[in-house]
Amino acid sequence: MSSQATPAKKRSLSGIKPTGFPHLGNYLGMIRPAIDLQDDFEAFYFVADYHALTTVRDPQALRQSVYQITAYFLAFGLDPEKAAFFRQSDIPEVTELTWLLSCVTHMGLLERAHAYKAARDQGIEKDINHGVFTYPVLMASDILIYDSDVVPVGADQVQHLEMTRDMAQKFNSAFGGDFLKLPEARVREDVATVPGLDGRKMSKSYGNIIEPLLPPKKLRKQIMKIETDSKGLDDPKDPSTCNIVTLYKLFASAEELAEMEENYRRGGYGYGHAKQALFEKMDEHFAPYRERFNAIIDDHNYLDDVLDAGARKVRPTVEDVIARVRQASGLGR
Amino acid sequence: MSSQATPAKKRSLSGIKPTGFPHLGNYLGMIRPAIDLQDDFEAFYFVADYHALTTVRDPQALRQSVYQITAYFLAFGLDPEKAAFFRQSDIPEVTELTWLLSCVTHMGLLERAHAYKAARDQGIEKDINHGVFTYPVLMASDILIYDSDVVPVGADQVQHLEMTRDMAQKFNSAFGGDFLKLPEARVREDVATVPGLDGRKMSKSYGNIIEPLLPPKKLRKQIMKIETDSKGLDDPKDPSTCNIVTLYKLFASAEELAEMEENYRRGGYGYGHAKQALFEKMDEHFAPYRERFNAIIDDHNYLDDVLDAGARKVRPTVEDVIARVRQASGLGR
Repeated sequence: MSSQATPAKKRSLSGIKPTGFPHLGNYLGMIRPAIDLQDDFEAFYFVADYHALTTVRDPQALRQSVYQITAYFLAFGLDPEKAAFFRQSDIPEVTELTWLLSCVTHMGLLERAHAYKAARDQGIEKDINHGVFTYPVLMASDILIYDSDVVPVGADQVQHLEMTRDMAQKFNSAFGGDFLKLPEARVREDVATVPGLDGRKMSKSYGNIIEPLLPPKKLRKQIMKIETDSKGLDDPKDPSTCNIVTLYKLFASAEELAEMEENYRRGGYGYGHAKQALFEKMDEHFAPYRERFNAIIDDHNYLDDVLDAGARKVRPTVEDVIARVRQASGLGR
Repeated sequence: MSSQATPAKKRSLSGIKPTGFPHLGNYLGMIRPAIDLQDDFEAFYFVADYHALTTVRDPQALRQSVYQITAYFLAFGLDPEKAAFFRQSDIPEVTELTWLLSCVTHMGLLERAHAYKAARDQGIEKDINHGVFTYPVLMASDILIYDSDVVPVGADQVQHLEMTRDMAQKFNSAFGGDFLKLPEARVREDVATVPGLDGRKMSKSYGNIIEPLLPPKKLRKQIMKIETDSKGLDDPKDPSTCNIVTLYKLFASAEELAEMEENYRRGGYGYGHAKQALFEKMDEHFAPYRERFNAIIDDHNYLDDVLDAGARKVRPTVEDVIARVRQASGLGR
């Protein structure tokens, strides 16, 4: 559906890194809000396989990760009839626009990028791969090539949007025209940070994650690993400082939550009971999604069809933008 | 003509910067030797319009420069039936391969590149545009995407070829296979340096050039500006230290040269006479090329046809190489 056909809806763009099996923090912090965009926006989603190549060296794993994240979004309700969900690398034009933007982007801008600074702090500058350094330009291209109106970002990604607007302005002013549309950041409301098994923010790098679409037995095993204090079964407990309660709160009704808090304060209710209650609640919540995910994850034909259809849907915009910037800069005839 | 059809011929690749009207130094140092490759090689030539965008901001001028250099090569005998002569930007896949190579290229390699070092020495590092920094990656991609066997280079470009081989090796080893062919440098024999009007090496930046395809009156005017010492008409002169003789040598027969040298030593032969002789010789030499150039320079349809046919000729190779590297790295299905 082109923007002409639905003039009332703004176009949103979301990029998704194919990092395999998402965890509960990814789901609540990014995936759920991203999927919800499809109702109010003309929503474009791309799976960033070009970007993954700054680190991934296993082609099989990369392809499998793309299928996993695609199946994940579909399982959680992404509607391919409404939205466009596609592979970044099915739009190779983003790399062409990346070159054009590189020619109007100063080195100083890229040296200030957070991700590059972090890489430099952790290692030897000359050993960092150039993809990491160039990445903000690719990302700007990813946004600008779809004439995106809004880009939902976390607070830590606001810089990227500013850099993107900067590059678009530089290009427009270098060649004298409004060739690239300046996107707006839509900073996500801070959802309650999801605590991991050890109470720190849930993160793959901390090894403290819960993966909600695991089979029930495995999901239960993960939940049973939530760290608590050493109070015994009979002791009264403080629900306000317990991770189990924090997680339970995300899925339980107000009554169910009040009941668990009451059990905590009263005593005679162990952490094992609370974990079991959390498991049952999560299992009940995620069972239909898990079922849908399992039904499609190995159906690569179906997943490819969805991805191909997404790429076809965005292609007219891409061709329009590329024609504009080639014409503006003097490439081709 | 694909490499399969002519297994005996190696493939050579030449990149040509579209910098407008070439001068005599460009012609003798690069254009003539490049054209001569078409007999012994399967010769690919691309006009580097992507590359030009690191500096050019005038789309009309860029397009005109592409037409000029194309007409120039054709006027001097490039045979579009034998060779492939095309626009770099008609093969946007080079920018895709550029991204893939960026992901296996360390920052340290690019920081050592001569052109970037020179730019850094001349200006403020953070103000250099990223295109200048990335350019060696684009250039490697330009070479590797055509499965080039040999790349004719001047001595100052040997580093670029080494960097290209390095990137190809890094990619091949990262993904475990011989996906990219390692090209060989073919260092050009040093042609006698062509002196400019002031005796320094002929160079647009010195403002000391002779443009051989100018109309006769203008060509004569340029030649009359050659700097000499202040010896008078009657004085004997030393032919071995005179620019006019050095230039005359490039076009005259042995007898004609001996006659001019004799005139110099004898005296009674002024620099004006020598310049006139040089003009007549060059005019005679270049008249047929000038005629051909003038006949086609404004025929953009013809020039576009040549460029399009060149792009079509190289496209099967490009698609083959891109399919290989996408498969190797895990992009696409």
